[in-house]
Amino acid sequence: MISTATQIDITLENILEFEQRYRATFINSLGGFKSLALIGTKSVNGQANLAVFNSLFHVGAHPPLFGFVVRPDSVDRHTLKNITETGEFTVNQVSAEFFMHAHQTSARYDADVSEFDATGLQEEYRPGCSAPFVKESAIKYSARLSEKINVALNGTIIVIGKVTMVSLPSVCLMPDGHIDIEKAGSITCSGLDAYYAVRGLGRLTYAKTDRFPQFLQQKTS
Amino acid sequence: MISTATQIDITLENILEFEQRYRATFINSLGGFKSLALIGTKSVNGQANLAVFNSLFHVGAHPPLFGFVVRPDSVDRHTLKNITETGEFTVNQVSAEFFMHAHQTSARYDADVSEFDATGLQEEYRPGCSAPFVKESAIKYSARLSEKINVALNGTIIVIGKVTMVSLPSVCLMPDGHIDIEKAGSITCSGLDAYYAVRGLGRLTYAKTDRFPQFLQQKTS
Repeated sequence: MISTATQIDITLENILEFEQRYRATFINSLGGFKSLALIGTKSVNGQANLAVFNSLFHVGAHPPLFGFVVRPDSVDRHTLKNITETGEFTVNQVSAEFFMHAHQTSARYDADVSEFDATGLQEEYRPGCSAPFVKESAIKYSARLSEKINVALNGTIIVIGKVTMVSLPSVCLMPDGHIDIEKAGSITCSGLDAYYAVRGLGRLTYAKTDRFPQFLQQKTS
Repeated sequence: MISTATQIDITLENILEFEQRYRATFINSLGGFKSLALIGTKSVNGQANLAVFNSLFHVGAHPPLFGFVVRPDSVDRHTLKNITETGEFTVNQVSAEFFMHAHQTSARYDADVSEFDATGLQEEYRPGCSAPFVKESAIKYSARLSEKINVALNGTIIVIGKVTMVSLPSVCLMPDGHIDIEKAGSITCSGLDAYYAVRGLGRLTYAKTDRFPQFLQQKTS
């Protein structure tokens, strides 16, 4: 366990006085480890686009909904424009084999450049979805735009998508519906640029007030 | 690399036909690894409350904003009620030493039960914030309610908070503002009940169109 003897406190006043890049790096580290996914879209002109996101969150299972954040001044805007115009996109989990390629999609390529071509990741298409999947990704799904929510505070947009199809390795699907994303090689990230592989600690039983959780399945590796 | 030779496709129709618990487990696994945090609040009557969340996402750095999701039918409602009434809450990252205690806070305790008492986690208070921090947590921050957003599609509420104070071990703060949350022992989760420690793959240089990313700092452990 880490020593918290030298714990330091940083106030909002300190944060507001930070140099801009330092502040962005600092605040982006606070949320803990993040989802890491490549979102694939196609423009109405047929131009493929791919961008890395780390803000996906669960919204509901019935119907299957999730959200992610598009920043007002970011390169993600090509993604948002395509999703708004076509209503379709794909979400592709990232593994250690291509996380540097995923990171590279955040460079400010022009709208007429495909990040697939620029990074060497391969497009893959499935019936019923015009947006490209990432061939290298083991767990991926297509979605339709359900809602766009404006966060008035800072001009950010939250996109809510509805899952339309999920593709995954059969060995990753557990008998109770849980998807073993560690087995698929999926990784996580923190801050703006730090990437991490994972090591399972175990699954826990559903929490009840009259007992402490037990391991449903403990990893010993 | 995992074999995707036995890739299976699951359609929206399949998902809608899943048994309810199976579907919730399945859809909750899709987003990738998640932030894992304990949110501490206090009711207007002085009752401490603690609940685990895995939907935190970054909204902006200036001002420092983040969001998280409160489900309509969940035990998180005590948290939402307290935040709405007092405007204050704390966010506490979770480490392997107490992830089972964190999981246990999701049991449906009555409103007059403190999850601190029920799980054995310790309350900690700081000047300027009436909400309790988790003493065992190395990286934690206080926040004020900024906005509540209703997701009309399924009655979910997105809470937007503004960071007011951050407390962290000095050894975790890197020269560029990045917080090394792996060093703090923070962990991640997936689905409804799977927990994971991490192993750093490295930090990457800022992505530019004219070069492939380099390691800013590579972990070899």
